[in-house]
Amino acid sequence: MILAFVGTAGSGKTTLTGEFGRYLKENGHNVAYVNLDTGVMRLPYKPDLDVRDEVTAWEIMEEGYGPNGAIVESYDRLLPKVGSYIDRIIRLDTENDYVLLDTPGQMETFLFHEFGVRLMESLPEPLTVYLFSPDILRKPHDFCFVRFFGLMIDLRLGTTTVPVLSKIDIVENIDEYRKYLDDVEYLKARLKLDPSMQGLLAYKMCSTLPELAPPTRVVYISAKTREGFDELETLAYEHYCTCGDLT
Amino acid sequence: MILAFVGTAGSGKTTLTGEFGRYLKENGHNVAYVNLDTGVMRLPYKPDLDVRDEVTAWEIMEEGYGPNGAIVESYDRLLPKVGSYIDRIIRLDTENDYVLLDTPGQMETFLFHEFGVRLMESLPEPLTVYLFSPDILRKPHDFCFVRFFGLMIDLRLGTTTVPVLSKIDIVENIDEYRKYLDDVEYLKARLKLDPSMQGLLAYKMCSTLPELAPPTRVVYISAKTREGFDELETLAYEHYCTCGDLT
Repeated sequence: MILAFVGTAGSGKTTLTGEFGRYLKENGHNVAYVNLDTGVMRLPYKPDLDVRDEVTAWEIMEEGYGPNGAIVESYDRLLPKVGSYIDRIIRLDTENDYVLLDTPGQMETFLFHEFGVRLMESLPEPLTVYLFSPDILRKPHDFCFVRFFGLMIDLRLGTTTVPVLSKIDIVENIDEYRKYLDDVEYLKARLKLDPSMQGLLAYKMCSTLPELAPPTRVVYISAKTREGFDELETLAYEHYCTCGDLT
Repeated sequence: MILAFVGTAGSGKTTLTGEFGRYLKENGHNVAYVNLDTGVMRLPYKPDLDVRDEVTAWEIMEEGYGPNGAIVESYDRLLPKVGSYIDRIIRLDTENDYVLLDTPGQMETFLFHEFGVRLMESLPEPLTVYLFSPDILRKPHDFCFVRFFGLMIDLRLGTTTVPVLSKIDIVENIDEYRKYLDDVEYLKARLKLDPSMQGLLAYKMCSTLPELAPPTRVVYISAKTREGFDELETLAYEHYCTCGDLT
């Protein structure tokens, strides 16, 4: 079973990958770790496959590239080898219960670069875990933004995506977050109070959500307290059994 | 009039900012350049305001951060000064006909970090120019992805967004791209032929587009041949006059 942890830099992908893997191992599962981030310095787990064995962003920076250019260039250099990575991940999948993919620090490197898209569309039924952290949720329309972002990931990568709010240990009013994320009617009612163009667009977009996708469960997780780990494990198992229906 | 050039690393933001500014100057306009990218090494224009005077990604890397961490950290350090940047951009706007904002190399740094969101929502009616390059458009559902991405930028930044296909000088079959991007019915007909879950989701998402937003014109641009520059200038002018209606 392949799980890909996708999210913006700072959303907690690498920490969660390491801690969720340890949790699965403690529960008796065989787990393989794959690091797909050419720019990460330290990992809290020992990768079974690591793109940094091929190329790192900082060695490209030594050639005179800036950090953004170096990151893109590193995936340009990995692209001719994508077939070999696909084969090796599929092999790890046959040898283990879980393969955890820790994706590039910047999410767009994975979503926009052909390396990420080709990798994901070639793997057998991977589940994408879309991580977002509480600090990007400031206003009602931001909740609409993250719900749609999950769909955008589905659309781009052709996988099933489970939206996960990370770092819930730093949140005091988790029930407020839950109301916005779990109940689209509540969210729409709040958006209706916002007369700006942004509020109107968010209202319209949220209104189309039920037509676009079945109501996907959001998982609330903390890599620190392990809250939500059992639910993520259950979802991954259901995905594996039913091939994509997470309603 | 404030134009923000937003797009993934490699979409051609910085080159277009420089060349479009030169074009405007040649046509008799006063133009100010603002660089918001802490990670860019060389610019093809002389910025009137530059975040690198405050902090650069590479000086943070010298403290031991990886490239992704350094980029995020640089905007964390800029955030307490966002008010001063807003004031200075507004001043440049009163002194010039055009202020061109060249945004961070990685688009998500701008869309997900509070620095970008607060900056954009505080500026007077900025127009966001969303750049995407032909290499990310491989299949029909990718065209749906970029159309929705424009809406996602609207939703997150609260601005009006004009979608721009960049680097059209490297494209041979531009008419094929135009059919997909300009005619949602044509795109839907092609998506209907794709029986995958991805094709079905793209079809449903594209079907909701007309309800969500008026049909926004896509601009086809080349920073090399200057094709499309006149149209972008016209659109910017119309935006300034009508405050947001680009149908």
